[in-house]
Amino acid sequence: MENFTYYNPTRLHFGKGVVSKLGKSAKQYGSKALLVYGRGSIRRNGIYDQVVDQLSEHGIRFVDFEGVKPNPLASDVDIAAQKARDFGAEMIIAVGGGSVIDSGKGIAITAPSQHQVWDFFSGKAKPKKALPLLAVLTLAATGTEMNPLAVLQDHDTGKKIGYGHPSMFPAHSFLDPANTFSVSRSYTSFGVVDLVAHSLEAWFGVGDASLSDRIVTSIIKEAMEYGPDLLDDPNSYELRAKIMYAATLALNGLTNNGRVSGDWGVHALGHEMSLLFDIPHGASLSIAYPAWLKLHQQKLKHRISMLGKALFDTDDDSQTIKELESFFTKMEAPIRLDDIGINNPDQRQALLQSMNKNKAQGYHHKLSDKDREKILAYMSLA
Amino acid sequence: MENFTYYNPTRLHFGKGVVSKLGKSAKQYGSKALLVYGRGSIRRNGIYDQVVDQLSEHGIRFVDFEGVKPNPLASDVDIAAQKARDFGAEMIIAVGGGSVIDSGKGIAITAPSQHQVWDFFSGKAKPKKALPLLAVLTLAATGTEMNPLAVLQDHDTGKKIGYGHPSMFPAHSFLDPANTFSVSRSYTSFGVVDLVAHSLEAWFGVGDASLSDRIVTSIIKEAMEYGPDLLDDPNSYELRAKIMYAATLALNGLTNNGRVSGDWGVHALGHEMSLLFDIPHGASLSIAYPAWLKLHQQKLKHRISMLGKALFDTDDDSQTIKELESFFTKMEAPIRLDDIGINNPDQRQALLQSMNKNKAQGYHHKLSDKDREKILAYMSLA
Repeated sequence: MENFTYYNPTRLHFGKGVVSKLGKSAKQYGSKALLVYGRGSIRRNGIYDQVVDQLSEHGIRFVDFEGVKPNPLASDVDIAAQKARDFGAEMIIAVGGGSVIDSGKGIAITAPSQHQVWDFFSGKAKPKKALPLLAVLTLAATGTEMNPLAVLQDHDTGKKIGYGHPSMFPAHSFLDPANTFSVSRSYTSFGVVDLVAHSLEAWFGVGDASLSDRIVTSIIKEAMEYGPDLLDDPNSYELRAKIMYAATLALNGLTNNGRVSGDWGVHALGHEMSLLFDIPHGASLSIAYPAWLKLHQQKLKHRISMLGKALFDTDDDSQTIKELESFFTKMEAPIRLDDIGINNPDQRQALLQSMNKNKAQGYHHKLSDKDREKILAYMSLA
Repeated sequence: MENFTYYNPTRLHFGKGVVSKLGKSAKQYGSKALLVYGRGSIRRNGIYDQVVDQLSEHGIRFVDFEGVKPNPLASDVDIAAQKARDFGAEMIIAVGGGSVIDSGKGIAITAPSQHQVWDFFSGKAKPKKALPLLAVLTLAATGTEMNPLAVLQDHDTGKKIGYGHPSMFPAHSFLDPANTFSVSRSYTSFGVVDLVAHSLEAWFGVGDASLSDRIVTSIIKEAMEYGPDLLDDPNSYELRAKIMYAATLALNGLTNNGRVSGDWGVHALGHEMSLLFDIPHGASLSIAYPAWLKLHQQKLKHRISMLGKALFDTDDDSQTIKELESFFTKMEAPIRLDDIGINNPDQRQALLQSMNKNKAQGYHHKLSDKDREKILAYMSLA
């Protein structure tokens, strides 16, 4: 087992009606908030009103920052941070999915600084302080609600970068599974894919950590047992709850304890796909994972077999990759570029160029340009 | 799934040599500490010197409180708290196993108050503040290193009480598996029993929480796979590490997420045995658990079968209880009163009286006097 430090101070409020605790929790940080959200779906499904009622009830004034995009932009974070400064916001309240909460994290470190958020994400500066962040989660997927990580995209430099800093843990996160009832069928799917992919990134990291391995496969089993059921019964509170909690545990640091780190190569590949074609994060992962596994099949034979044993009762590595593809397909997620309409050679060449230019790869299982070409070929299979 | 709040701010430093981070971590809280430990084994095995070197190096003065007992006494906590007050200690550093760290928690809330620790534990008063607690763990067992719980014994009232308060989380815990090499064979065993018993208390709690169930069985599997190996190879760093981490996760709150709570009936029974006969906590649990399961075998048939399915590949509830007994026996832990020399009728009658007088039972599966009589009979079987 590798040495590790585990620290996760987020207070997770999970269950029916937990947004009713938002006002009291927020009040301890002051009386002025920046309220961050996406393109208005929370106005339609009533979550905006729940939040605003809480703030009014506890005498917290706020200004809105609306319009965070699904692949959130650094430039929006900078605009929002300026808005927070101008208003004198004492806290950030982010209401939405991963993109909104990630943006909230960026705003939380940028607002009290002289920097643009990209200075932090690109490593030019380190956050010295942060506004407290309260997150109301409306999509089960990224795990951002209980970790210090965020992914932002910078159109100027053409990069999508993940960044983490301890000051970026949400102080409180409010997870009401009922707030995910209105998530579309496809985003429900992609969320399940995302949580499985996070678990796999840990699994294919480096370091012998048997209990963390068991937790990884526990989380994946949960997704595999209840994910397809959820597509059949999207208004089941219990199923929404199971998937929501699994997504949180998949990336709150726990699966990584005792390892050097996860690999994150597949996410790097997926980010390039999202950047180039604006496809949902989850969809990029269900395409990239099987391809990445096929590339590394010999090198990672032992780990793939162990995974197959735990999940599919097979120790055949090829069979395990097939089973994983079947699961993604059952979840109605794409497993080939064709499935998302990336079917002409120019598009595929552009993707390869972009992956190579940004040297998309993981921390451990390094990818050469030739490897990426093979991965593209696997992603392009019929 | 039941609503829950999960909050665990302890910073866990795990691995080889992590005590080298103690001084720097402590320094942020001030320059005066009360150093709490047991009956001097840490002086013999070198851990005391590691700690003192850290404190000296970072200019932290300290006074010692030595002599915490294996079943720690409230009266000792009060004496130590007075010592902390007299010295003006700004933090508590507890170096030892569960008894020492639990005492450290009691001292941390008592020192800055006008109360005796029993006022808190008996519910007469609530902690308003606490000194920061830094824990150096030397025994894998109770999980106290990453939770806000403590168990103390009051000889005046004849009670052993568990108590928890958010101010009692250690701020930092330092877990170097190498610091458990010198733990005796029997205490190594009892630690494994304890972590399994904690997991079972969660399992037999109330609330449908499938992912928490998977985590519970993951932890127990870890103990069952590596516990016996550790008895064969007590100087294996890897095995010590696996058991140490499993013990931490078994009671850091995670296994309880989505449940109303665990049951804790077996611990209540065990505490009576420890109080009366001064036997180690773990030994009391390996005797009490099979008896408790036999009493509830019909009522909990479904849960026992589910557990058997996950752990022993059987859904026969009787077989599951037998397998659990076999595991405890393999760990050289007692499973009957006879095994610890409690073999005369007067002793057994005294135990029954004590259990009945203190109404030893769990939060959910209530025990009548008649139930306890049956439990005693099961514990007395040949």
